[in-house]
Amino acid sequence: MSDNSAQNKQVQLVSYPRGLPQESDFRIVRAPVQRPRDGEFLVRGIFLSLDPWQRLRMRDPAAFRGQYGTPVLLNSVVPGAVVGEVVETRNPAFRVGEIVEAKLGWQCYAVTDGAGDRKDDAAGIVKVDPSRGSLSTALGVLGRTGMTAYFSLLDVGRIRQGETVLVSTAAGATGSVAGQIARIEGCRAVGLVGTAEKMRFVVDELGFDAAVDYRDEDGLDRALSEACPQGVDVYLDLVGGDLADRILRHMNDRGRWVVIGHIADYDKPIDAHVGLRPQGYILGRRLRMEGFVVHDYAARFPEAVSRMSAWMSEGRLRYREHVTKGLENAPRAFIDMLSGGNIGKALVRVGPDPVP
Amino acid sequence: MSDNSAQNKQVQLVSYPRGLPQESDFRIVRAPVQRPRDGEFLVRGIFLSLDPWQRLRMRDPAAFRGQYGTPVLLNSVVPGAVVGEVVETRNPAFRVGEIVEAKLGWQCYAVTDGAGDRKDDAAGIVKVDPSRGSLSTALGVLGRTGMTAYFSLLDVGRIRQGETVLVSTAAGATGSVAGQIARIEGCRAVGLVGTAEKMRFVVDELGFDAAVDYRDEDGLDRALSEACPQGVDVYLDLVGGDLADRILRHMNDRGRWVVIGHIADYDKPIDAHVGLRPQGYILGRRLRMEGFVVHDYAARFPEAVSRMSAWMSEGRLRYREHVTKGLENAPRAFIDMLSGGNIGKALVRVGPDPVP
Repeated sequence: MSDNSAQNKQVQLVSYPRGLPQESDFRIVRAPVQRPRDGEFLVRGIFLSLDPWQRLRMRDPAAFRGQYGTPVLLNSVVPGAVVGEVVETRNPAFRVGEIVEAKLGWQCYAVTDGAGDRKDDAAGIVKVDPSRGSLSTALGVLGRTGMTAYFSLLDVGRIRQGETVLVSTAAGATGSVAGQIARIEGCRAVGLVGTAEKMRFVVDELGFDAAVDYRDEDGLDRALSEACPQGVDVYLDLVGGDLADRILRHMNDRGRWVVIGHIADYDKPIDAHVGLRPQGYILGRRLRMEGFVVHDYAARFPEAVSRMSAWMSEGRLRYREHVTKGLENAPRAFIDMLSGGNIGKALVRVGPDPVP
Repeated sequence: MSDNSAQNKQVQLVSYPRGLPQESDFRIVRAPVQRPRDGEFLVRGIFLSLDPWQRLRMRDPAAFRGQYGTPVLLNSVVPGAVVGEVVETRNPAFRVGEIVEAKLGWQCYAVTDGAGDRKDDAAGIVKVDPSRGSLSTALGVLGRTGMTAYFSLLDVGRIRQGETVLVSTAAGATGSVAGQIARIEGCRAVGLVGTAEKMRFVVDELGFDAAVDYRDEDGLDRALSEACPQGVDVYLDLVGGDLADRILRHMNDRGRWVVIGHIADYDKPIDAHVGLRPQGYILGRRLRMEGFVVHDYAARFPEAVSRMSAWMSEGRLRYREHVTKGLENAPRAFIDMLSGGNIGKALVRVGPDPVP
C-alpha cells in the first residue's frame, strides 16, 4: 500500500428510513484502513454505484424478515458496488494495480477475499479491463445496470423486431440502455419519464421513438395509446406500484412483463403490496410476467459486454453518467437519485483514477 | 334426419347474474329443429359440458366491454361444448353418423358449418373416434379439460421430476386430471379442495400425495406447509382471488404459476380485481406467471389424446364424471358446479348415445 497513513471513510446507516431516506439516516465514519490477511487484498475505491436496490436493503429486518434483499444492520456500512484498484494483496489471484468491481459498500477502502458479497449475489469480484474506456462504465453501461438491460430484454423479454418495448425509469441507468438496445434490435422503444428534460434526453439524445410522462396521471392512458399505437409487447418494470396497474391495459396478447424492481413498493412489506391483481390480464391476454435478477446471468456477462462494447464503438449505444464528488456526499446523491434527480447512471467519485 | 318431427330445446340466458347465477337467470325454449343449408350439417347433442368459463360469458357487456370472453347476449343460447351425432348433412366433410365435439351451446340440436365458435375459439369442430371409450370423455379427460391439464402442466408449467405441483379445484375436471399427470411425471401432487369427500377422492382414488382444505382460512398456511414441505414449484390456478394471495408465499424460487382461470373474480370487472400485487414475490423468487388458454394448443390435441389414452388403458389415469340428466336441468347443474357440488367432470346428458 502506497500510503500507510490513509484513513478509511465509510457511510453507515443509523436508522431505517420510512419512505424517502433523509440525510440523518446516515453518518460518515472515519477509521484506520484495514490490512489484508492471508488470502485477502485491499481495494481503494474509485467509483461507487448508487442503485435502487440499496433502498431495499435499508429496511427494518423486524418488518421485512425473510424477504428479498437481506437488510443491512444499523451502524454498519451501506452495501453498494464499487470499482476500485487493488493497492495491497495477500491473494495471488489479485495483483496490485488491477482494477476490480465488487459489492464492497459505501467506503473508500475495503478488504475482501475475492468472493464479493456472496450471501446475496452469486457474482463475486469481477476484474475490469481498464483499456475498454472509463472505469465508471464497469458500474453502468458495461456493469450490472447495462447487463440488466441486456439480459432482461433479450433473455426474459425475448424482444423481436417490430415489437413495442415500454421501459420504465427510461432516463435512468438501466432504462436508458434498455431503450437503445430495443432500437438496435429493431423494436419501437418508448420510455416512461418524469420530466420534460428527461423526455428530451431519451428521445433526442438516445433515439427512443417516444416518451411518456408518467406523472401526468390523467393523461397517462391517452399518452400511452399515442406512444404505443400497436400496444405494448414488452414492459420492463423497475417501478411496480400504481403505474403497473395502469400499464396492464396497454399490454398486447402474449406480452412479456419483466419485473426488475418495484421502487414504488420498497417501503411496504411484501404482503402489503395492495393494488390490482394482474391475473385477469395475464389470463385474458396470455401475458408472461417474470422476475429478473441480474446476477443470475453473471456467467454470461462477457458475452453482453462484448456486444455492447461493439455497439458503443459504432456509436449506436450511448450513456450518460451523473457523478457526485466525494463519498461524504453519497447519502445526498442517493436521495436525489431516488427522487428522480439524475439522468443516466448515478455514481459517486470516491477516489482518483490510478496514475498510469 | 331420422325424426322430422323432433323439437329443439335450448337454454337461454334471460338476465346477467351477479355472483352465483340463479335458475331464474335462464329459461328453457322449445323451437322447431333448424335444417342445414348448403355447407352446413345438423348435430344432435348427446352430452353438454359444464365449464366455469361459461360463467365468464354471462357478464353484462356494458360492464365488461372489451374483456376476455365475449359476453352472451340476453335471450340467446348459453354457449357450451357439446358432443353429438351428425344427423343430417349438406357438408361433404361431415357424414351422417359421425360423432363431433364443438361449442354448439346449451341445446339439443344445432346447425353448424363446421367452423365451430371461431370468434372465441380457434378450434372448430373436432371429430371424435367413438372406439376410444365413452363419448363423454371427448368433453372431459380427453377433451378440453384434459387438454388443459396436460398442456398447462407440461408446456407452461414445465414440470420436472421431483417437483411439487399444487392444483386448485383438484376434484374438478381439470384439477383431477392435472394431479394425476403430475404424479405420472414423477412430481409430488397436492390438491386444493373444499370438502372432506373431495379430499378422500383425490388422495385415495386418484393417488394425489396430499390435499388441503382451502376453506379453512386460519389453518391454510400450516396445511400448505405440511402438504408441501419442499414448497410449491408449480401452481395451477383456476381460481385466483384471495386464495392466490395466500399461495404466493409458498412458492419456491423459479416457481411457475399458470393462470387458467379466476373464478373468484369472474363477477368483477378486470380493473376491480383488487388484492395482493404479486410482483414483489415474482421478483424476489424469480417466479414466472403466465396465462393459459387451451385452444391455443388445438393443433397438438392429438398428441395429448394419444398419450393420455395410453395412461388410461394402463390404469394410471382415472376420471370421474358427474352427469345430470336432461337439458332442462343444465342451469341447476351449472349452479351446482360453480358452488363446488360436483366431483370430476360436470356433464349434462342431452340425448341418448347413437344406436350402433
